[in-house]
Order: sequence, then C-alpha cells, then structure tokens
Amino acid sequence: MPPEGDGFARRAGALLRSAANDLKRDDEHAERDLGLERGTFRSYTDGQRPLDWELIRRAAEVWPLNERDLLPAHDDCPRGLAVMREKDSMAGARVLSRAGRPYYEYRDTAMSRIASYRPEWIRMLQVVGDDEADNPLVQWNRGHLLYQFTYFVGPVNYYCRWEGRSRCVPMETGDSVWGLPFAPHSFAARTDAEPAYILALTYGGGLTGDAQRELAVLGRSAAHALALPVTADPSVTARMIRSFMDAGALTATELAGRTGLPQRRTEALVGGAEPAGPDELALLAFGLGVSVRDLLPPRTGTDGGVAIQHARDARRWELPGEDGRPAYLVTRLAGDPLHPHTSALQLDVLGSDAARPSPLTTYQHQYVYVLGREGVRVRWEFAGEHFEEVLEAGASAYIRPQVPVTFTAPDGGRPRLLLLRIAGAVTPEVRHALGTMAAGGPDRYIAEDRLWYSKEGN
Amino acid sequence: MPPEGDGFARRAGALLRSAANDLKRDDEHAERDLGLERGTFRSYTDGQRPLDWELIRRAAEVWPLNERDLLPAHDDCPRGLAVMREKDSMAGARVLSRAGRPYYEYRDTAMSRIASYRPEWIRMLQVVGDDEADNPLVQWNRGHLLYQFTYFVGPVNYYCRWEGRSRCVPMETGDSVWGLPFAPHSFAARTDAEPAYILALTYGGGLTGDAQRELAVLGRSAAHALALPVTADPSVTARMIRSFMDAGALTATELAGRTGLPQRRTEALVGGAEPAGPDELALLAFGLGVSVRDLLPPRTGTDGGVAIQHARDARRWELPGEDGRPAYLVTRLAGDPLHPHTSALQLDVLGSDAARPSPLTTYQHQYVYVLGREGVRVRWEFAGEHFEEVLEAGASAYIRPQVPVTFTAPDGGRPRLLLLRIAGAVTPEVRHALGTMAAGGPDRYIAEDRLWYSKEGN
Repeated sequence: MPPEGDGFARRAGALLRSAANDLKRDDEHAERDLGLERGTFRSYTDGQRPLDWELIRRAAEVWPLNERDLLPAHDDCPRGLAVMREKDSMAGARVLSRAGRPYYEYRDTAMSRIASYRPEWIRMLQVVGDDEADNPLVQWNRGHLLYQFTYFVGPVNYYCRWEGRSRCVPMETGDSVWGLPFAPHSFAARTDAEPAYILALTYGGGLTGDAQRELAVLGRSAAHALALPVTADPSVTARMIRSFMDAGALTATELAGRTGLPQRRTEALVGGAEPAGPDELALLAFGLGVSVRDLLPPRTGTDGGVAIQHARDARRWELPGEDGRPAYLVTRLAGDPLHPHTSALQLDVLGSDAARPSPLTTYQHQYVYVLGREGVRVRWEFAGEHFEEVLEAGASAYIRPQVPVTFTAPDGGRPRLLLLRIAGAVTPEVRHALGTMAAGGPDRYIAEDRLWYSKEGN
Repeated sequence: MPPEGDGFARRAGALLRSAANDLKRDDEHAERDLGLERGTFRSYTDGQRPLDWELIRRAAEVWPLNERDLLPAHDDCPRGLAVMREKDSMAGARVLSRAGRPYYEYRDTAMSRIASYRPEWIRMLQVVGDDEADNPLVQWNRGHLLYQFTYFVGPVNYYCRWEGRSRCVPMETGDSVWGLPFAPHSFAARTDAEPAYILALTYGGGLTGDAQRELAVLGRSAAHALALPVTADPSVTARMIRSFMDAGALTATELAGRTGLPQRRTEALVGGAEPAGPDELALLAFGLGVSVRDLLPPRTGTDGGVAIQHARDARRWELPGEDGRPAYLVTRLAGDPLHPHTSALQLDVLGSDAARPSPLTTYQHQYVYVLGREGVRVRWEFAGEHFEEVLEAGASAYIRPQVPVTFTAPDGGRPRLLLLRIAGAVTPEVRHALGTMAAGGPDRYIAEDRLWYSKEGN
C-alpha cells in the first residue's frame, strides 16, 4: 500500500473496522481470524499502521469479502479544484494510427481519481472531401464502454452507427452529442485549413465500479436476463410490476387483496393489457411495498443511440449575478433523460473581475474546459478556505461536488467555458439513505471509528 | 494476487483492458506508462499472466485511478447456490460479552463474496424479567452501518432507540423487524426455559462499496450537504426540482419557457408553495431533461427507525404449483419501501417431493435459512445444469440472481424457510443501461476482450 498524505491509510483503517463490524468481529476475534498479534488490530483500524497487501489478501481469504472491499479511493484534489494546464495536456499528446496512417492526436485533460471522467482533447488528422458515411478514409472504432459527451470545434464530421445503419453528421463549432455505450463511431476533418478537434468527454457513470464487477461474476446469461429495455411502451410499467411480484412471490389475487382493486382489473394491469392511472399506480405501489417512482420507467430522447444538439437551435439564457446583472450566458448542450444527473453546458462569462456573480454550486462532479483563447478567473471555496486561479486557454479543471465556484473575465473579455457535470456513486438512493440514518450515522458511515458496541456495557 | 480457478485472473485482465480503453491507451502506450516489456500487455489483459500487486500499484500511480478499480470480485458460488450446514455454523460460534458477562452467542450463516449479506444466528444469553426499555441488564449497542432484517424465534425482547427514545417490543416466533442504519438496539430473552434466538440478517445494500469510498473522500460536510430527507411533505419534490435547476444552471424563466407553464405558476411550483399535478410534473420533467420518476421521492413506513411486522397480523397467501395445487404458503415479513428491492418472506413448503412447484426466479440475490427441525429439498438450475440438495434444519444458503429454484418436503412434512432477497450493485439504472447499449455491449461490458479500435482499420 503506498504511504500517502491524503488520508488513504486512515480511510483504509476505517474500512477494515467497518468490515469487522459488519462481520460482528471484535478486535480479539479479528486478530485471531487475520493472524495478527494480540492488541494490534486497533493500530490498523485507526490508520496508525498502514494496511499492507498481505493483510488485505488474508482478510479476503478468511472473510467472505473481496480485496477491493478493503481499499479506499485516493484524494488527488485536496484543494477542491484541480487544474490541468494546456502545456501539461500537450506534454502527454500521442498520435494513434489506423491502418498505418495517423488518424487522431489525443491529449488528456483534467481527470481525478474521485470521479469517472476520462476527458480527451482529440484532433482529427484525417481530412475527408465529402459527408458520406461510407467514405473509405473514415476509420470506425468498435465502440467503447463509456458514455460519451462530445463538443465540436471547427469543421468536424461525426460518424455514428446503430443497428447496422451508419450516418455522417457534419458539425460546426458549438454543436454537441451525447452517445450510448459501445456504438461504433468516428470523426474526420472536412478541411485542414482551420482547427478541427473535439472535446471527447467520456465517463463511466453508474456503469464502472461495483456493478461491473458484480455482473462480471454473474456472467453473460444473467446480464442479459437483467437488462431492461427503455421504451415509451406502457407495457414497461406492467413488466416492472411483475418483476416486483416475483420479488415478493405475489399472486394477482394477493395483490388485489392488498390494493383493494378488483381481481379482474388487477390482472389486466399486471398483464399490461391496460395502462394504470395515477391513483391505481399509487395503490399498486402500496400493495407492492414500493414507491410510485419505482414503477415508472426512465425515458430517452436518443435516436440511433445518440442525442444531437446543434448550436444553431440550442436554448440560451442569462444567469443573473448577485447584483442582478447578467453574469453568464448559458447554452444547453446535448444530454439525455437516461442520465438525469448529467448536465452539459456552455458558459459565456459576461462579468469582469469586478462583477459579483452568484456562486454556482451543485451536487454533481464538475469538469471545466476553457474554450476559445480567452482565460477565465475562477474563485472557489473549499474546507473554509477561499481560492482563486486564472485558467488560461486550453486549461481544464476538475471540481468536487458541493464546491461553490464563480467565473469572471480577468481581461474584461468574454471567455467561454465548457462544463460537464456528472453524478458519481452517490446516487439519490444513497442520498436518501444518508437522510434517514440515525443521528451521527453519516459521520460513522464515511469513517467508522469504533467497535459497534462497548465492551464495558452501557 | 491469489492464483485462482474461479476466473479472477481473467476478470482482472478484462478490467485492465477496460481501464486502458477508457484512458485511450493502446498496448504500446499502456506498456510505456506501466513500465512493461514491449508486447506483454496483452498477456495481462487476456488473463494468461495474472496481475500482481506491483502492477496494480503502478497503474494507480501513473493513471488517474484507484487500486480497487483494477480488482474484480471473487466467485465463491460456482454452482449457483452455496450451502452452509448447521454444524459449520456451530463450529464458528463465538460468545461476545458485555460488561464482562456473556451476552450473545453468534454463529455465521451462509455468506458469499458476491452479495452484501452478513447473516448471523444470534442467541440471547441475557434473561430479563420485564419488558422495560430501561432494564439495566440490557446492554445496548452503538448501532451499525448495515441495514438489519431480524426474524425472531422464541421469547425475545427487542429494544430499539431513535432520537433518544427507547422502546422494548416483546416478540414471538415469526415476528420480524427491518431497521435503519446506526440506530442503537439490543435483544434479551424473557426466559431460559425455551430457545430464544434471532436471525439477524444484515446487508449493505447500496451503502457499502463505491458510494462509501467516494463519500469518505468527499468528507463530512459534503456528506451532510448531500443527505436528502425522506418525508411525505410535498416540498420534497420542489427541492428535487431546484436541485435539477442548479444542475442545469436554470432560471425559473428558462424553465417556464421550456415547459410552457406560466412564469408565476412555475415559480410557485419551484418554491414549493403549491404541489404539482401529474400533467405539470410531466412538463417539469420534460423541461428539466429528466424522467418523472426522478422528481418523485421515495416513501418510508418506518416509525422510530424501524418497520415491525408481527406474525399475528402478517399477510399470508398460497402460491400454486404447476399442477395448480398449493406449493407454498407465503407470509410477508418486515420491510420498507425505502428498500423496494428487498423482500423478506417466510415460506411454508406444502408440496412433497412428488409435487411440481413452479420455479421461483428473481433478479435479486437470495438468502435462505431452514427454520424449525424439518429439512427441505432444494432443486435448482444453473449454467445449463440441474442440481439438488437437502438442506437440513439450521442450514442456510446463498442463491445467485436469476437462478430458478424449487423447494419440496423430502419427508412429506411441512418445512419452513426464511427467505431474504436483496438487490446488489446492479441497480435499475444499470439494468436500463444494459438494455440500451449497442449490440454486443453487455458482453464486452462484463468482460472487455478487445482494444476499442482495430489497428488495421475498418
């Protein structure tokens, strides 16, 4: 385990205590199980002695857990906001070839171990002379796991394929697209007379992490059985009702008895023959022991696996500052209701350094990229401290959730930013769980510091 | 990394490939970054060469990821169902004392590295002569992270504390309770003349795993800011609307423009002054770019942090078999809409070995405990194979999701089972994501086996 100043050892110790508590092992039993010297368990759990791989391996052997269950995350953003300068992005530039010819230049931009962003600046090295999807100069990829939000700069052709159908969509600066995982796609420049690049902001969302590991064990046939379609078809709600009935080993007769709905009507709703009205939905949720939200499917606006937003018909609005004057001109970029916690925005910064913009604060993780050639001053607050920095053109930044941030124009110009905000692993379910824990629970949840009982008694 | 036959090395290799793809590193760049010999990366990603800790450490150092991101889970349930016999539970029995006196005897029951169950059989060693919550013989714990479903056997007193108020609830066999995290509680026997024990089935649900690690880094003040209350108050929906407005940097004027709702009405809905009707909710969801489900809060039926279900007023119904005759008598046990994917059931097995019960299949993980002294025959299907086993009294089992299972009475008796079904990390959001991926996506998601593009080109 790397020795670190970021609290890693302390967080690892808290996880070890939490795991032992979950398994109802006090210090003595934990020491016996793990082959530790008597009286030493506590020095691991309080972070004094760092966990080593051997201890983790041993715990995963004798206890029903996995090595990763004892490993915390790193904190590489101790100031609340972490910047990557353009020169650092350029230093890591790499050219990837297709069929032996340079096709893309990639540059990493700001990433953090706290969030699932994998944002790349990508320049198109292939020039095409038409907008045909089957242009043989276009090298398609095989698709990839991550969701991709793409912002276009310059004359870029976007190619996307879905269910065998290939399309070419000519894009201009400010256009954007949000796309589903594993759909093959490509990009090319329509000319080399001007810059043609994209911000390819991929992210894992809820897909990477625990779910991927669980499904990897459950295997293909379980993964296919667990897949739920997203359609506007009212039969989807009926399918969800039947799924909850299976979960509760319910019959339609029992569900009718619980809801007070007539047996015949219950059967029609369960079978999907008829859609449920709002009152019936509430009754069914009650009968199934769930919330109405659990019976409603998500919706999607994607067409052919993507949601495209051209700049020319994007919604724009002004966001006033504390002085009532416009602080930002906001443009809505591509997104989809399937990811309600993802927001892509273009922000034109209207206020000079003397202006008083209202701090922008969100529960989401945030990624910022400075578009254009004008820098921006960013001010933020974290852990009781105030910070500020100037982000020059081509700089990018990661911002932790709940950090209030403002942007102003240091040179009186009108800088332009790209913002991509995403959810992390703290889903609404977890947030509601935090809100319903007993007093003191959230603090112990994130850093368990005690045995679950007192040996001395009450 | 332990060498294993359960596919661990193969899954670890797939995660390494997936991580490199996410970071847009082909083999050569990955080898350079990780200090690997040219041409060896592929032998790691295809599982031929197992990842060692040093490689994982190095990856977490040079790439913006955490060690745990490269670690898969173990598969300790290769037959679909894993049994723990009573004698094995007894072999691990341990007595925990409070204030120097034996208070509980703990026995582990069936657990798996695939699911978050921590189910214990616990015998009360302390006898009390009254039902007073402040009986000084009762030793309270400090509460713990995991959700707890408890099934009572014999004359057990249940003690629970919430917001400073302590209660004692006398329980009988078949009673059950579901409780929120970190609420102090205790148990004692009302007599030592008959057995008094509980099945204390704790589980992490969505709390353990990624979310806990992310919040541990985000820290206390972020965790408190992210907590969402669960109340029936209509202002909760307004709060959710405002949260999505913050996410999208929206003004009420812009929201009114998107929805077509009058400005004044929009402000009233956003402020929570008036509740939104069903049509307005649909408009607001459209305007915010989310689904209606995202605007509806969950509900809870807990009172004082717990949901109690006495056997005497529990709902019971028969579940018919394939021959139309009753196969099981099902009793609904304690639960709460906050956990819509948790189902606790008591199953009386009515059919003899000759009967034809319909297979029970669910998307949930399952835990089974044999109550009473009669064994049960369990038959199941996994990976195309058929299995059967007799679970004797006191045996317990873990069953993977989507495994069809039937229970019959081998001796013509009427065995009784306790079933606790829970969700894993594969949330409805992930299930919908599986359902919207491009063709072939789910297979690559759970076991990425290729570079995200072909070097040879199309």
